[in-house]
Amino acid sequence: MAAKPGIPKGTRDFSPVEMAKRNYIFNTIRDVFHLFGYQQIETPSMENLSTLMGKYGDEGDKLLFKIQNSGDYFNGITDEELLSRNAVKLASKFCEKGLRYDLTVPFARYVVMHRDEISFPFKRYQIQPVWRADRPQKGRYREFYQCDADVVGSNSLLNEVELVQMIDRVFGKFGVRVSIKINNRKILTGIAEIIGEADKIVDITVAIDKLDKIGLENVNAELASKGIPQEAIDKLQPIILLSGSNEEKLETLKTVLATSEAGLKGVEESEFILKTVSALGVKSEVELDLTLARGLNYYTGAIFEVKALDVQIGSISGGGRYDNLTGVFGMDGMSGVGISFGADRIFDVLNQLDLYPKEAVNGTELLFVNFGDKEAAYCLPILTKVREAGVRAEIYPDASKMKKQMGYANDKQIPFVAIVGENEMNEGKLTLKNMTTGEQSLVTPDELLAVVKA
Amino acid sequence: MAAKPGIPKGTRDFSPVEMAKRNYIFNTIRDVFHLFGYQQIETPSMENLSTLMGKYGDEGDKLLFKIQNSGDYFNGITDEELLSRNAVKLASKFCEKGLRYDLTVPFARYVVMHRDEISFPFKRYQIQPVWRADRPQKGRYREFYQCDADVVGSNSLLNEVELVQMIDRVFGKFGVRVSIKINNRKILTGIAEIIGEADKIVDITVAIDKLDKIGLENVNAELASKGIPQEAIDKLQPIILLSGSNEEKLETLKTVLATSEAGLKGVEESEFILKTVSALGVKSEVELDLTLARGLNYYTGAIFEVKALDVQIGSISGGGRYDNLTGVFGMDGMSGVGISFGADRIFDVLNQLDLYPKEAVNGTELLFVNFGDKEAAYCLPILTKVREAGVRAEIYPDASKMKKQMGYANDKQIPFVAIVGENEMNEGKLTLKNMTTGEQSLVTPDELLAVVKA
Repeated sequence: MAAKPGIPKGTRDFSPVEMAKRNYIFNTIRDVFHLFGYQQIETPSMENLSTLMGKYGDEGDKLLFKIQNSGDYFNGITDEELLSRNAVKLASKFCEKGLRYDLTVPFARYVVMHRDEISFPFKRYQIQPVWRADRPQKGRYREFYQCDADVVGSNSLLNEVELVQMIDRVFGKFGVRVSIKINNRKILTGIAEIIGEADKIVDITVAIDKLDKIGLENVNAELASKGIPQEAIDKLQPIILLSGSNEEKLETLKTVLATSEAGLKGVEESEFILKTVSALGVKSEVELDLTLARGLNYYTGAIFEVKALDVQIGSISGGGRYDNLTGVFGMDGMSGVGISFGADRIFDVLNQLDLYPKEAVNGTELLFVNFGDKEAAYCLPILTKVREAGVRAEIYPDASKMKKQMGYANDKQIPFVAIVGENEMNEGKLTLKNMTTGEQSLVTPDELLAVVKA
Repeated sequence: MAAKPGIPKGTRDFSPVEMAKRNYIFNTIRDVFHLFGYQQIETPSMENLSTLMGKYGDEGDKLLFKIQNSGDYFNGITDEELLSRNAVKLASKFCEKGLRYDLTVPFARYVVMHRDEISFPFKRYQIQPVWRADRPQKGRYREFYQCDADVVGSNSLLNEVELVQMIDRVFGKFGVRVSIKINNRKILTGIAEIIGEADKIVDITVAIDKLDKIGLENVNAELASKGIPQEAIDKLQPIILLSGSNEEKLETLKTVLATSEAGLKGVEESEFILKTVSALGVKSEVELDLTLARGLNYYTGAIFEVKALDVQIGSISGGGRYDNLTGVFGMDGMSGVGISFGADRIFDVLNQLDLYPKEAVNGTELLFVNFGDKEAAYCLPILTKVREAGVRAEIYPDASKMKKQMGYANDKQIPFVAIVGENEMNEGKLTLKNMTTGEQSLVTPDELLAVVKA
């Protein structure tokens, strides 16, 4: 007998129920993307390694899945090189292609290749799997979907406003209460400027983030332990203790950052986004949060992050503004802003809060039990008509034992079962069983349709 | 400057318009799958090579994309092995994983791994890309989507009937006239039996298929040239000349195959499928076609193939009944029947016949022109309301030149544009331009919504 098959570690099969839930998530997000004028693209799973390498740092390069060249992959490699066993160096000889690591680099590559046919500003979304040779662990997979929306070729803050509205609408549709956190890279730059410690900005945000947990004294001690001079720590006090409404925070920052051009610009941008969003009436809480420091190497303006309020889990969505998407491919000045929805975490959140609508599962609504050839022949035209009316329906294909057929209906959570034997055929009717209530009734085909569609 | 980036040969980017069309195709098929009780699964892109190797013949093994092991892939390979440069043999040392080559083997693997949680008969569909290191050529790609529906764990011919109904409904929805060809492996076995030439069945079907083109004499000559004795060719005459309605063909076959148990079984199965399908009223032409010989190594009963009637192109869908899906993984007796829709060819057919409905493109319905901050601020609440009403709408994010903004509307084929300047703001109205007719009218926000939604 063949060995029992398995799947590579860090990968997953998605069963029908999981798929239905995932489709509900992606379709909901997709509808919002369309509502805001975003258009879908897809890029190949495989990219040339020359496109991928060097874009994610040394660590990222190691995590790329590389595809062995077809045919004689030893071609062009000397014996000496082979015996050197230099896995990193020879990878580029054995392999010309790799699996995409994220959606951003392929998007940048796409924009450069298709620049002449794209009408900018280009609002694109992309929902595709990515692959990373990470050590698999709970909640971290080697293959997972990313779900990104970006608009490139526009510096307007209206794009940031729209993205906040989109986040608000997506989670509103899901019924998940979220807090949308906003920061701005320029504010962080301003803070670094006024205290003269540009390279300590991450240490500072990490320390400030602990204020609630460890208190002001300990925050200041941590800052000192990171080598930040007392004078700078003194200047940081109003920022560490920043509180109140977004408006109050912004007013404080205007004073503190008065001498930093970048800082004031960041405050102004944040003010516009927060005011406009608030005027347009989003339902989620939107909060200026200076401790938000995701993607600092990459983001140049607004930074977003979304936290679920009723589930303990990391951020379920995030993004920001960047200045130069395509510079690595020799095309400068392509700024943009984007967000990414974390499908796996959203899946977990909706599961924990039990928020999947029943319709989302898209399953069979009506099963015809099969008692034999004659009964099946009686059912088939009715089944065909029922489907014609848009009802998802099936007949159990074999005349198996009743128990097995009802078990099938239960497993597939089919809400209605039609049963046809001698009596029903003689009367031109069917017995319709409501699987939820257990109720049974003798109905005509038209009545059956009315009940099931109700 | 960095080199201009490209993509691996045989792969494709899908632009927004292509994506919208592809989504229309997949969503249409998906809806039909759901209507018939099929449920979606997804399997990982990467499978263990032990799962994939040996399933597609030697040629197929060569066409698998193999993924280089992470870390030190030289581990466990001796210097002698390296210097042997045996690319085929060492591939299994360098690589443990490969990209999926089709959806059937991963499905079989899935069924074996999840047998205890599946409620049989299991009606599953799967729409995912597959990868083959084929030589790229026109219409043949190294990455392409397959779209398969199978039901396993049931021998009932009602499954075959349903699949024909599904094919009929899918192409009916597309508006593509098709001919659904049906054959049965057992009929072909019967033919081989009565003439005593079991290994010549492919030669025979190929020769018969040429009847219309080259005439009976040449068909017989070709059969003789393939080493089929005259006596056998004589017996084949009624089969070569088989014509008339499906009923007439079946009657002839009953006589010709009278001494073959398998042959008669095949006739009986075909008769049931054709009669039942016809009684249920499919719209497509359904034809018994003995020259249909796809997947003869694999199919054991019914064989299907779908041809578009109004476009010159290969089959756009096909499938059949198989006896033992999971035997290669040590689980016997799992018979099933399935069909596969050829997405790329269907895409071409719908393009050639111009059959994409306008709604399929899902694009923006209304663009607000942006004349500046004040005008944008006036538009934003209206835009928000319009979206609230389900209209896909956007505002041009920058106050660019009118020409550029109108060009954007044209490129995205946006049917309505709202223009707001001083006058409109003073009157609390908007100028709405119908981009198809060129008509302009001054409307209130409510009137705008009514026109755009109409």
